[in-house]
Amino acid sequence: MRKDGRAASELRNTTIDVDYLTAPLACALIRSGATWVLCTASVEEQVPPFLRPKPSPNGPRKEPQSGWVTAEYSMLPGSTGTRSSRAPSGRSKEIERLIGRSLRAAVDLTRLGARTLTIDCDVLQADGGTRTAAITGGYVALALALRRLGDKGLLRESPLRQAVAAVSVGICDGQPYLDLPYEEDSRAEVDMNVVMAQSAEQSPPSFVEVQGTGEHGTFSRQQLDALLGLAEGGIGQLLALQKAALAVGR
Amino acid sequence: MRKDGRAASELRNTTIDVDYLTAPLACALIRSGATWVLCTASVEEQVPPFLRPKPSPNGPRKEPQSGWVTAEYSMLPGSTGTRSSRAPSGRSKEIERLIGRSLRAAVDLTRLGARTLTIDCDVLQADGGTRTAAITGGYVALALALRRLGDKGLLRESPLRQAVAAVSVGICDGQPYLDLPYEEDSRAEVDMNVVMAQSAEQSPPSFVEVQGTGEHGTFSRQQLDALLGLAEGGIGQLLALQKAALAVGR
Amino acid sequence: MRKDGRAASELRNTTIDVDYLTAPLACALIRSGATWVLCTASVEEQVPPFLRPKPSPNGPRKEPQSGWVTAEYSMLPGSTGTRSSRAPSGRSKEIERLIGRSLRAAVDLTRLGARTLTIDCDVLQADGGTRTAAITGGYVALALALRRLGDKGLLRESPLRQAVAAVSVGICDGQPYLDLPYEEDSRAEVDMNVVMAQSAEQSPPSFVEVQGTGEHGTFSRQQLDALLGLAEGGIGQLLALQKAALAVGR
Amino acid sequence: MRKDGRAASELRNTTIDVDYLTAPLACALIRSGATWVLCTASVEEQVPPFLRPKPSPNGPRKEPQSGWVTAEYSMLPGSTGTRSSRAPSGRSKEIERLIGRSLRAAVDLTRLGARTLTIDCDVLQADGGTRTAAITGGYVALALALRRLGDKGLLRESPLRQAVAAVSVGICDGQPYLDLPYEEDSRAEVDMNVVMAQSAEQSPPSFVEVQGTGEHGTFSRQQLDALLGLAEGGIGQLLALQKAALAVGR
Amino acid sequence: MRKDGRAASELRNTTIDVDYLTAPLACALIRSGATWVLCTASVEEQVPPFLRPKPSPNGPRKEPQSGWVTAEYSMLPGSTGTRSSRAPSGRSKEIERLIGRSLRAAVDLTRLGARTLTIDCDVLQADGGTRTAAITGGYVALALALRRLGDKGLLRESPLRQAVAAVSVGICDGQPYLDLPYEEDSRAEVDMNVVMAQSAEQSPPSFVEVQGTGEHGTFSRQQLDALLGLAEGGIGQLLALQKAALAVGR
Amino acid sequence: MRKDGRAASELRNTTIDVDYLTAPLACALIRSGATWVLCTASVEEQVPPFLRPKPSPNGPRKEPQSGWVTAEYSMLPGSTGTRSSRAPSGRSKEIERLIGRSLRAAVDLTRLGARTLTIDCDVLQADGGTRTAAITGGYVALALALRRLGDKGLLRESPLRQAVAAVSVGICDGQPYLDLPYEEDSRAEVDMNVVMAQSAEQSPPSFVEVQGTGEHGTFSRQQLDALLGLAEGGIGQLLALQKAALAVGR
Repeated sequence: MRKDGRAASELRNTTIDVDYLTAPLACALIRSGATWVLCTASVEEQVPPFLRPKPSPNGPRKEPQSGWVTAEYSMLPGSTGTRSSRAPSGRSKEIERLIGRSLRAAVDLTRLGARTLTIDCDVLQADGGTRTAAITGGYVALALALRRLGDKGLLRESPLRQAVAAVSVGICDGQPYLDLPYEEDSRAEVDMNVVMAQSAEQSPPSFVEVQGTGEHGTFSRQQLDALLGLAEGGIGQLLALQKAALAVGR
Repeated sequence: MRKDGRAASELRNTTIDVDYLTAPLACALIRSGATWVLCTASVEEQVPPFLRPKPSPNGPRKEPQSGWVTAEYSMLPGSTGTRSSRAPSGRSKEIERLIGRSLRAAVDLTRLGARTLTIDCDVLQADGGTRTAAITGGYVALALALRRLGDKGLLRESPLRQAVAAVSVGICDGQPYLDLPYEEDSRAEVDMNVVMAQSAEQSPPSFVEVQGTGEHGTFSRQQLDALLGLAEGGIGQLLALQKAALAVGR
Repeated sequence: MRKDGRAASELRNTTIDVDYLTAPLACALIRSGATWVLCTASVEEQVPPFLRPKPSPNGPRKEPQSGWVTAEYSMLPGSTGTRSSRAPSGRSKEIERLIGRSLRAAVDLTRLGARTLTIDCDVLQADGGTRTAAITGGYVALALALRRLGDKGLLRESPLRQAVAAVSVGICDGQPYLDLPYEEDSRAEVDMNVVMAQSAEQSPPSFVEVQGTGEHGTFSRQQLDALLGLAEGGIGQLLALQKAALAVGR
Repeated sequence: MRKDGRAASELRNTTIDVDYLTAPLACALIRSGATWVLCTASVEEQVPPFLRPKPSPNGPRKEPQSGWVTAEYSMLPGSTGTRSSRAPSGRSKEIERLIGRSLRAAVDLTRLGARTLTIDCDVLQADGGTRTAAITGGYVALALALRRLGDKGLLRESPLRQAVAAVSVGICDGQPYLDLPYEEDSRAEVDMNVVMAQSAEQSPPSFVEVQGTGEHGTFSRQQLDALLGLAEGGIGQLLALQKAALAVGR
Repeated sequence: MRKDGRAASELRNTTIDVDYLTAPLACALIRSGATWVLCTASVEEQVPPFLRPKPSPNGPRKEPQSGWVTAEYSMLPGSTGTRSSRAPSGRSKEIERLIGRSLRAAVDLTRLGARTLTIDCDVLQADGGTRTAAITGGYVALALALRRLGDKGLLRESPLRQAVAAVSVGICDGQPYLDLPYEEDSRAEVDMNVVMAQSAEQSPPSFVEVQGTGEHGTFSRQQLDALLGLAEGGIGQLLALQKAALAVGR
Repeated sequence: MRKDGRAASELRNTTIDVDYLTAPLACALIRSGATWVLCTASVEEQVPPFLRPKPSPNGPRKEPQSGWVTAEYSMLPGSTGTRSSRAPSGRSKEIERLIGRSLRAAVDLTRLGARTLTIDCDVLQADGGTRTAAITGGYVALALALRRLGDKGLLRESPLRQAVAAVSVGICDGQPYLDLPYEEDSRAEVDMNVVMAQSAEQSPPSFVEVQGTGEHGTFSRQQLDALLGLAEGGIGQLLALQKAALAVGR
C-alpha cells in the first residue's frame, strides 16, 4: 500500500471549481490532493504572427484562416515549502508547450475566428502532477470560455471537438502507480505523463500525448503497457469530473 | 454616494484568511472587495550579499549582524479581464520596493538571525488597491511566519516590533474617498497610498510611508489633510482585522 | 546647525545653466551643491504605442489625440567615489517614473501634437537629491524645448500649463531639514520628496507628488506638517531660479 | 511506398564518423540521410552547483559524490533552406533536456569523478530527426571521451553502463513509418521519439524515453504498439552502427 | 623557422570546398590548417529597417533603394580543446561587424534588389585566424549565392564588384610572420588582420580594412610596412584559391 | 579647404580640463571642437575573475600577479540632435575594447597591485572622433588616478610606462584629412583611427593600434601612408596637451 493509503490504481481526491474568480473570462480551480492549479482563460482579438497572412502590396487585407490556443504555466514562488524563483525556466517552457499542444487537440482552430485564447495555469500549491492537473483544469476553463464566446454570438459553430484530460503514472519501488504525489514522483524509477481525448461520439478515449522517462532506470515493454493501462483508468474518471464541473458553470 | 453604495470613509468588505494553503511556511489570503492577494512567507537561511561581512583572509568567518525581509509582487495574467503579461515591469519593481520597506518597518532585523524572509504577494484578482492589500495581508503572513520560527526555537526574542497596514485614498470628482476600487482609481484626480504602523504600547499609529500623486491634477494642502484623515480611519480598522486573523492562526 | 553650516530651512547653493551643450534641442545643467544633473530634451515625431489609435481596416488612418513627455534617469558610473554599475536598476526605473509623471503635470499633452519629448537626466556628480534636481532642471529643459518647437511653428498654442519644481526634505537627528546632501540623506530617519506646480495665475503652488518614507523610523502627523512647510519654502525659491534661467535662454 | 523509396520499417542511410575534428576531446559526425549532426565532447574538472556539497564552516572541504553529463543542442542558422535565428528557443532547451537525460542513462555518474562532460550537438544540416540523431551520435562522442579519460588514468572504473540510441517514428497518411525525414515529419498525424538502452549483458534493449505526440490527430493503443515495434527494430540497427564506429575510433 | 616548419611568408595549407552542404542556398567550407570555417549563405526577401523608406501617409508604398549583406560569426563550443560558451560575446559582435563590412565591399548593394544576404560563418575548429578565414570563405559563399540568384532570374545585373580576401599577419619573437596559428597568435607582440579587394580590371589589390594591434608591445612604422608586405603576398594566393573554388561550383 | 576652415593637417581646437568633477578619484573633460568626453577613473580593490589564481584546496590563498585597467564607453542619449538609445550596442562594446587595450598599453599591470582601474568615458556631446577623444582624455584620467594612488602610498613603483593618445584620420573627397568631425566622418571614403604611445625616453612615438576601414571605397598603399603621416603629426600635439593638463592637476 502507498504512504497516503491509496491503492495503486486510485486517483487522489480531485475537485474542479469553476468561477472561483469572477474577473477573468473563465476560471477553473483544480485541486488534486495538495496540488492546486488555478486555470484562467483570456481572449485577445488577434493571432500570433505565424498565423497572419503575408500582406500583398496591392490586394485587400487578408484575414487569418484560423485562431490559436496557447498556455502559460507558472508556479507561485511560495507554492512549495522551499521558495522557488519567479524566473521562467526551461522546464516551464517545456511544460507550457505540452499544455498548449494538448489543449489545441480539443479545439477546431478554424472555427475559432481570428482570435487567441490563452489559458494561464498558475500553480498555487505543488505536490506532484502539476502539469497534468493544468491540462485537466485548463480544459475546463477553455470549454467555459468557448461557451461564453458563443453566448456572446462571436462563434458561428462551437470549436470544441473533444474533451482532453491528463494524468501522471510511474513506477515506484518496482510497482506501477497512478497519480504520483511529490513524495513518490521524486523517487520514481519511471515517470510518465499521459494525455487523452474523448469526443462525444467516440469510445474509448485515444492518446494525445505520451511522455515516459526512465529517470532512475529503464523500463520494459511490459511495464510500459501496465502504466498505460493505469492512465486510461484514471483519465476516464477525470473526464467525468470535467463534465460535472462544466454542467455547474454558467 | 459612490457607485458601489459605500460612504466616502467606508472600507470595502475585507477578510483575511490564514493558512489558506498548507505547503508554505505561512500564508494569508486577503480579499478587499474583488481585490484578492495571496501572501505567502518563505524563509531562507542566508542573507543577501550586501548584508554579508567582508571576508578577511586570515581571521575567522564572520556572521551577518542582521537578517532581511523582502517582498515580491506579481499579478497573475488572468487577474483582470484583459490579460496582462507575466514579464515583470518597472511598476512591479516599484511596488515590491514599497512592500518590502513597509514590512521591514514591522521587524527588528537584528533579532531575525542570519536569514531572509520573503513575502510573495500574488494578486489573484485585481480591482484597485492591490499594493496596499499586499502590505496589509503580507504583514499577517510575516507575523505568522515569525511565530512559527519562534515555535521551532530558532529565535531568541521575537523580532516583531509593530503591526503595519496600508490603504489607498484619493480624490474622485473632487471628493476625497477611502479605499478606491479600479473604477474610481482609474479616473481619480489624486491617488495616495498610506502605510502606518502601530506598536502595542503606542497610540495612535504613525506613518511609515505616504505616496500621493496628482495623476490628473494637483492638490492643495487642505485636500492632503482630508486624505490623511480618511487613511488614518481606514488603517485603524485594518489593524483590528489583522489582529483577529492572527488570533485564529496557529 | 548642519555640518555644511546651513540653516534647517536653507537650500544648497543652486544654479541652472541653459545651453551648456549645443547639440541637443534644449539643455539645462542644474548644480545643487555637489549634485550636478545634466538635463537634455529631444523630440521624436511619433508617440508610444499606447497612444496610437487602433487601426480600422477600411477607414482612414487616424492621428493620435495627444503627445507624450517621458524621462530617463541615469547616474554616470563615476558620479560617486565608489563606481556604480551602468546596468539600469529598479531604483532608476522608479525615479524615471516619478520624473516623467512630474514633468507631464507641466504640459497639456493634447496641445503637443503627435510627438514625444524625452528629457534625459544624467547625473554627472551625486551628493543627495538627484531625483528632485532632475525634476527642477528637467522642467527648464522641457520649457526651453517647447519654446523652440513653437519658434519653428510646430505648435499652434503653447502646451506649457505650469512650472514644476521639486525638493527633498527629511528628519535627521530628530530635526526637519530642507534639501538633504548625501551625508544627511543616508542617515535620515524620514526622507521625503515633494513636487509642486505653479501656474501663472495661481497662488500659492499646489502639490503634484508627495513621497515620504520612514527609512529608519516612523513619523507623526505633526512631523509630516513640518516637512511639508519646509518643502513649500524651498520650492518657492527654485521656481524663481527656473524663471531666471529661462529668461536667459534663447 | 514512401517518397524516398524506403520501406515503412527502413532506416535512412546512416553513417557515424569518429574524429572528424581533432581539436575536441572526442567527436562524432552522424549523417542520417540529409540530417547531419556534429557531436563533440568536452570535459571540465568541476560539477554544476546542485551537485556540490554544502560547505560546513569548520569541517574539511567535501568532494562532490558524483559527476555530471549534460548536452547542448543548436541548429546552425544555415542548416535549412530558410535561415533560422541563432537565439536559443524554448524548443532547443526542451531538446537539450531530452538529450542530456538520455545520455546520462548511459553513465554511472558516481564513477565519473567530480567532472562534467558536455556533449555539444550542432546540426550542420537538418532534414528531420535531428534530436534522435543527436542522441545516437552523442552517445558515440560520450563513449569515446570516457575511453580517452580512462586512457589518461583519470577514471578508476569505466562509468559506461550501457549504449543509448534513439530514433523517430510516426504515422503519416495513416501508415506507421520509421525514421521520418522533414517531408514526412511536417505532415505526420503522430510523431514519436523513442530512446532505448542496451547494456552488454541484457537482451533485448529497454526504454529510456518515449515521447509521442498527436500533432494532427490522436492515436489508439494499437497504433502506439505498432510505432513502438518499428522503433525497436530501428534502434537495434543503430546500436550496431555505434558499436562499429567505436571499434574504429582510437 | 616556425614551429610548424613554414617560412615567414608562407600560408598554411588552405582548401575551399563549395557545396559541402546541400540544404543552404550556397556553402563553402574553408580549411586553413586546423582552422575550419563553414560559411553558408541565405537570402531573405526583405531589408533591415534602416534601409526601408519612411512610409508617407497618402503616397504609394516605396521600395528600398538597396539590398543588404550581413554576416554572423560563431564558434562551435567544441571547436577548441577547452569548451567555450555559446553566449555571443562582444568579441563575436566585433568580428561580425568586420566580416559584414568586408563582404559588403564586394557587392554593389543597389543591384541586389530589396533583399538581404546573410553569410553565416560557423567555426567548426579553431586554430587562429578564424575571422580572416571567415572573410575569405564567406566571399566564396556570397559569390556562389549571387550566381544562383542570377540563374533564377532574380537579378538584372550581377551585383558582384570585386573579390575580397583576408589574412592575418603578426610579429612573433620580433619576426614578422604570415598567417598565424593559435600557438603564434597567442604570444604575438603585434597582431594584424588585413582585408583586400581585387576587381577584375584592377591590379594590384587595394585595402578594405587594416586592423593592427600591439597586444604585447608597440610597433614602428617600419614594422608596419613589413607586415603589410607579407599580407599582400598571402592575399594574392587566397584570391587565386577563391577563383579556383568558384570555377568548380555550379 | 575644409568646411570648418581648417587645413588638412590641422587638429580641431582641443582642451583637457582635469578635476572638472570632484567626487571621482580622477576626472578629465576633453573637448575637441563640439566633441566632449567626460573621462572619470575609479579604483576597485579586486581583479576580474580571469586574473585570479586558481584556488588550491590545501595551500594558502594566492594573490593575483597583476592588476587590470578597463574602460567603459557610452554616449549620453542627448549627446546628438537625434536622441539615441541607452541600450549598449555592439558598436559600444567594440569601442570599449579598443579604449581598454589602448590604455593598458600605458601601464605596467604587474606594478598596479591586485586592483582594477576603470576609466568611464561618457560622451556629453558627439561630433565625430569620440573614441579617439576618449583614449586621449582617458589617459589623463588614468595618469592622474595613478598619481593619487601613489600619493596615498598604495603603489611601490609607478605603473605608468608611457603616454597614449589617439586621433582619427580619413579620406574625404579624395583628400586625406586629420581629425574628422561628423560632417566629414559620415561621408568619408576611408576612416582610420590611430593610437600611439610615447615613453619618456623614446622618440618618436610608436603605434599601439591602427584601424583603417574603407567605408565607401578601398585605399591604396600610398593613401595609407599619407594617412599615417597625418596621424603622427596630430598625435604629437595631443601628447603635448596631455602633458600640460597633467602639470596642472594635483
